Amino acid sequence: MDRPTTTTTTVVASQTYDGGESPALRRLRLLSLHLYQPSLTRAASSGRGEHGLIPCGSGGGRARRVEASGPELKAYMEGPHREVQMRVFDFFSSRPDLQTPVEISTADHRELCMRQLVALVREAGVRPFRYVLEDPSVYFAITEAAGGIDISLGIKLGVQYSLWGGSVMNLGTKKHKDKYFNAIDNLDYPGCFAMTELHHGSNVQGLQTTATFDPLTDEFVINTPNDGAIKWWIGNAAVHGKFATVFARLILPLQGNGGESADMGVHAFIVPIRDLKSHSVLPGIEIHDCGHKVGLNGVDNGALRFRSVRIPRDNLLNRFADVACDGKYTSSLPTVNKRFAATLGELVGGRVGLAYSSVGVLKIAVTIAVRYSLLRQQFGPPKQPEVSILDYQSQQHKLMPMLASTYAFHFATRYLVDKYSEMKKAHDDDVVSDVHSLSAGLKAYVTSYTAKSISTCREACGGHGYAAVNRFGILRNDHDIFQTFEGDNTVLLQQVAADLLKQYKEKFEGGTLAVTWNYLRDSMASYLSQPNPVTARWEGEDHLRNPTFQLDAFRYRTSRLLQSVATRLHKHSRTLGGFGAWNRCLNHLLTLAESHIESVILAKFIEAVQSCPDKKTREVLKLVCDLYALDRIWNDIGTYRNVDYVAPNKAKAIHKLAEYLSFQVRGVARELVDAFDLPDIVTRAPIGMPSEAYSQYTQYIGF
Amino acid sequence: MDRPTTTTTTVVASQTYDGGESPALRRLRLLSLHLYQPSLTRAASSGRGEHGLIPCGSGGGRARRVEASGPELKAYMEGPHREVQMRVFDFFSSRPDLQTPVEISTADHRELCMRQLVALVREAGVRPFRYVLEDPSVYFAITEAAGGIDISLGIKLGVQYSLWGGSVMNLGTKKHKDKYFNAIDNLDYPGCFAMTELHHGSNVQGLQTTATFDPLTDEFVINTPNDGAIKWWIGNAAVHGKFATVFARLILPLQGNGGESADMGVHAFIVPIRDLKSHSVLPGIEIHDCGHKVGLNGVDNGALRFRSVRIPRDNLLNRFADVACDGKYTSSLPTVNKRFAATLGELVGGRVGLAYSSVGVLKIAVTIAVRYSLLRQQFGPPKQPEVSILDYQSQQHKLMPMLASTYAFHFATRYLVDKYSEMKKAHDDDVVSDVHSLSAGLKAYVTSYTAKSISTCREACGGHGYAAVNRFGILRNDHDIFQTFEGDNTVLLQQVAADLLKQYKEKFEGGTLAVTWNYLRDSMASYLSQPNPVTARWEGEDHLRNPTFQLDAFRYRTSRLLQSVATRLHKHSRTLGGFGAWNRCLNHLLTLAESHIESVILAKFIEAVQSCPDKKTREVLKLVCDLYALDRIWNDIGTYRNVDYVAPNKAKAIHKLAEYLSFQVRGVARELVDAFDLPDIVTRAPIGMPSEAYSQYTQYIGF
Repeated sequence: MDRPTTTTTTVVASQTYDGGESPALRRLRLLSLHLYQPSLTRAASSGRGEHGLIPCGSGGGRARRVEASGPELKAYMEGPHREVQMRVFDFFSSRPDLQTPVEISTADHRELCMRQLVALVREAGVRPFRYVLEDPSVYFAITEAAGGIDISLGIKLGVQYSLWGGSVMNLGTKKHKDKYFNAIDNLDYPGCFAMTELHHGSNVQGLQTTATFDPLTDEFVINTPNDGAIKWWIGNAAVHGKFATVFARLILPLQGNGGESADMGVHAFIVPIRDLKSHSVLPGIEIHDCGHKVGLNGVDNGALRFRSVRIPRDNLLNRFADVACDGKYTSSLPTVNKRFAATLGELVGGRVGLAYSSVGVLKIAVTIAVRYSLLRQQFGPPKQPEVSILDYQSQQHKLMPMLASTYAFHFATRYLVDKYSEMKKAHDDDVVSDVHSLSAGLKAYVTSYTAKSISTCREACGGHGYAAVNRFGILRNDHDIFQTFEGDNTVLLQQVAADLLKQYKEKFEGGTLAVTWNYLRDSMASYLSQPNPVTARWEGEDHLRNPTFQLDAFRYRTSRLLQSVATRLHKHSRTLGGFGAWNRCLNHLLTLAESHIESVILAKFIEAVQSCPDKKTREVLKLVCDLYALDRIWNDIGTYRNVDYVAPNKAKAIHKLAEYLSFQVRGVARELVDAFDLPDIVTRAPIGMPSEAYSQYTQYIGF
Repeated sequence: MDRPTTTTTTVVASQTYDGGESPALRRLRLLSLHLYQPSLTRAASSGRGEHGLIPCGSGGGRARRVEASGPELKAYMEGPHREVQMRVFDFFSSRPDLQTPVEISTADHRELCMRQLVALVREAGVRPFRYVLEDPSVYFAITEAAGGIDISLGIKLGVQYSLWGGSVMNLGTKKHKDKYFNAIDNLDYPGCFAMTELHHGSNVQGLQTTATFDPLTDEFVINTPNDGAIKWWIGNAAVHGKFATVFARLILPLQGNGGESADMGVHAFIVPIRDLKSHSVLPGIEIHDCGHKVGLNGVDNGALRFRSVRIPRDNLLNRFADVACDGKYTSSLPTVNKRFAATLGELVGGRVGLAYSSVGVLKIAVTIAVRYSLLRQQFGPPKQPEVSILDYQSQQHKLMPMLASTYAFHFATRYLVDKYSEMKKAHDDDVVSDVHSLSAGLKAYVTSYTAKSISTCREACGGHGYAAVNRFGILRNDHDIFQTFEGDNTVLLQQVAADLLKQYKEKFEGGTLAVTWNYLRDSMASYLSQPNPVTARWEGEDHLRNPTFQLDAFRYRTSRLLQSVATRLHKHSRTLGGFGAWNRCLNHLLTLAESHIESVILAKFIEAVQSCPDKKTREVLKLVCDLYALDRIWNDIGTYRNVDYVAPNKAKAIHKLAEYLSFQVRGVARELVDAFDLPDIVTRAPIGMPSEAYSQYTQYIGF
């Protein structure tokens, strides 16, 4: 937790390590000292002096502490749709009968979850459906709030309105809207989104369910050709669904070469699965319960098998392609791949929602962990009171970069939601491609991070973190699958990498870059030159906390990874073919995608800091942003060192400063989590209550 | 997945990166090429050529593949107490009524778990208790097997025999053994281990429960002075326990300075908590249920409050200290701290057992994930069949180093168990201190690793990994607390660091090093010199796969961390005091401890490879060991680069070789997990079955 050493002391120290330094390098280093502005050196130096006086763990002291003003910070963090979220919170606060108990059986949880959803829509009058189409940012705010009540509720709501409802509205045409909108909206028609099959999840184009057109009856015949094609994991199928949007290969008899059937690729069809009145499963349909899951047991996932199920021709969701009564196929899009892309493209909102909701879950976990770590005392200096466990460097190391990341993701996902809303309004091709890649990348990056962090929070809260009432287990189990559904994270990151490579190629062919990718233009150029041996040695605090340095470092890394993977792919594709070369570089590609997403996140965070009108708040956010940036650079210091982008002593300075910033953020940790403004009904954990946590806990147990 | 480049091509490549290389450095590098044996260069070169021909994902091919012989590998991995483990497995295989269902309520799970334990002891005749004392390695084998049936059962068994039974036997004297042995053994006396309090877990010396001697009645009076001192998380307390070993401060009235009470520190007492016949809670004792937990819900944890509960003087577990009827205190150990250390020292077996069982859990998770990844196919080259997901570099990256770690931990924990058994027989002071530190370190390191890995396995298995029947959720939730109980991992690693520093200090004062620490003698010396600029550039495969290089690298890192933290602690303690300095260096200390444990693990793995009698098996193990070593070095490449222990191109070579070794290990992955020899009753997951996995899965769902 030392502040970085001054450049003067560094020279001395570095001699210990640089033993065999050449005269040329020594000259360069000395030169860099002259270039290095003396004012920065002094700032770093005096900082060190101050911090040296604070015994670690004492909290306050003589160093200039950053202070947070709660209300301003809260106001700046508040989302634009707080009001509708409060309606959700207030409604459930007033209805303890609808609260999910800490232990509940799968069967009861499913029923409760459905009651929660029905009550929210019909009693509280919160109607998410129209926002799916009209103003997605309101829709996402509702989903996040519902997820705060019970993640299962948020997902059940998403299945109904975004997946089932969204597929009908986005892939269908007016006739479908007219027929289904109201009944989906008011939950008369609970429905499913039947895409995934037992053997095919990520590879959606490999789906095997068929929809064969029968011109004699003007119907499609839906069929499950083998066990592997059973629709699997279908939410709302096991208990509540009345309809399903079924993704199946459209087969047109006699239209292929030589009079064979033509396989037109995957299309979407509305298939009724249960009787509207009796709710009994319809003939030809077999439904089984996917059973108890790791989490999200409020959602009833089922498996569906179709045996020659006939549906009217009108049930083809025909926005992108249609079949006439004579079996003629028409489409505004020329190829199977384009139609497939357009179909899936409309579903990108799910990823946006997951990224956004995942940050909501992370906020809950971090809030509980930080509050408990402030409360909990264990050990201390001899003959003095015990200290808060958040005063330990190790606990700060676990939680403060996580808190900083939560802030970073908050701003990044808010940006994503705005972009997505813009896309829905403008339908500009560049924005579409930008949002696709960004939503894939942020969904993958954020959900992976949140999943790991919930486990870290549990562990950081020790035994009391293991009580189910304190939430970490439930949050982790429910959130876990966020990494997989709506696109497996490993697959999504590859989409990001592929898009980066496409942009890279276009750039060199003189094309333009998508908005989010713009930075590559500048940094690719700087990459092509060697790292600057002078700046590589700058290690003053002002330099390391300069957003330009931070962003340059992130972007340099991305550019370098992009350029090198492009070269490697080119080389390997000659011997291994495209698929083999891609696989040979796969880890590299995933690192590239993560690096790019981190660059975007940092850029948005820096913007958010700079746009903050209140000076004190801006200072706090700057502190948090610096921690985010330096912690990430330190996490991949090997890459930076390997190309001498940072010199050894700069690497040490980055590490020390990151530890010091964790220590400083700890000083405003309470205000930072309070600014998430989570109501008690969302945090719920006795150990995460803003006050009287222990006594709430003992009371809960029965004392 | 490229093989490392040959040294010749390296020279060319390195010039791209080393731009400003000085003449001196260039001379050195050229010199190193001459020193480097040509035969190694050729070996690396031909390896590269071969691998270049294998399209990634094709699996077989022309490269020389390492092959595994299943039976020999299995035989080498088999533990010495397989027979008693098979008795456990066979018994539960024959008793489906005792199998834990995928979904079960907490109340039912507790009853089932007790029935499982009783049946194991009374029906199967597996009696763990005597082994706790006589042959711990048998005891640990039983615990591991029981944990394979249900982790709750393994822990319930541990609470009864290791914690409750072990505390009576190890902290008590003959009178206690005579009175309690049989009834603990046959489960007539289920009992608890009441150490942790609401406010104190890790800081056991801060416990506040009191045991005040009353000479008038010859009794101790047990009291809970405040809410924070309520005994919390006590296994067996909520439902089944009849007794508890209660840890309380021994208070002797009138024996302090000036006739005040004397606080003699924490001692252990046997306190009956429920009536032996009626099972009703005894007067003065208040028990509440700690309720639903994240996992391990087969174990009934409760909270205990004592209100002047009187117990006879004989109930003091008096091996290390005693109170006479007149209140006189005697002890063979001179100070409170020594008595406390001796008391806790007897409990170290719990950590050994957890480290060992944690590896057992890791084996289950890895087996399921690897088998499913071999079965599951998704995507593939154009117009060719889909490929196994384990053929993807990213999946290999997730699972192969994990598989290698499982092997590494297998040998390391087996060594720990042997050491522990030796300690129990010999009571040699050096061995005791060695085992304490090693058990703390391995418990912390292995359980943290396993916890993370189970999540990775779930994610690597996508949606099907989320079905509760496929085990990852249950394994993760049950195992999670392994990181916390029997010593919080962060606290345990500090004990390792403290021990290392003690050894370090003693070394410089001319003392001897404990056995496991011996390597520090040599490597500290080499640390004091600069890294060798010649070997820092060696990057041939034979060099990187040389165990001497690997072990040197691990030990260099540990030595360096030790030396530097000692210096830092010394510096900071002058201004911050001991506690403040320790906290200022805490992250550094934790890294040191982990690094040391990794060094020990690698050393044991290398020994195991070298002792393997079968050539083919030795070759496979060597491959796995190399992957373990290089993956770890790559994970901390920043540290190695920062001190130029490895040159940039060597770092790249290590990375490439680690990827290539993952690819090679994938070729024997099935044999490697089969060699764990887990019976179906342990793996259980339909997707983890050795054959017919999908159809077992569809049948389970009801098709």
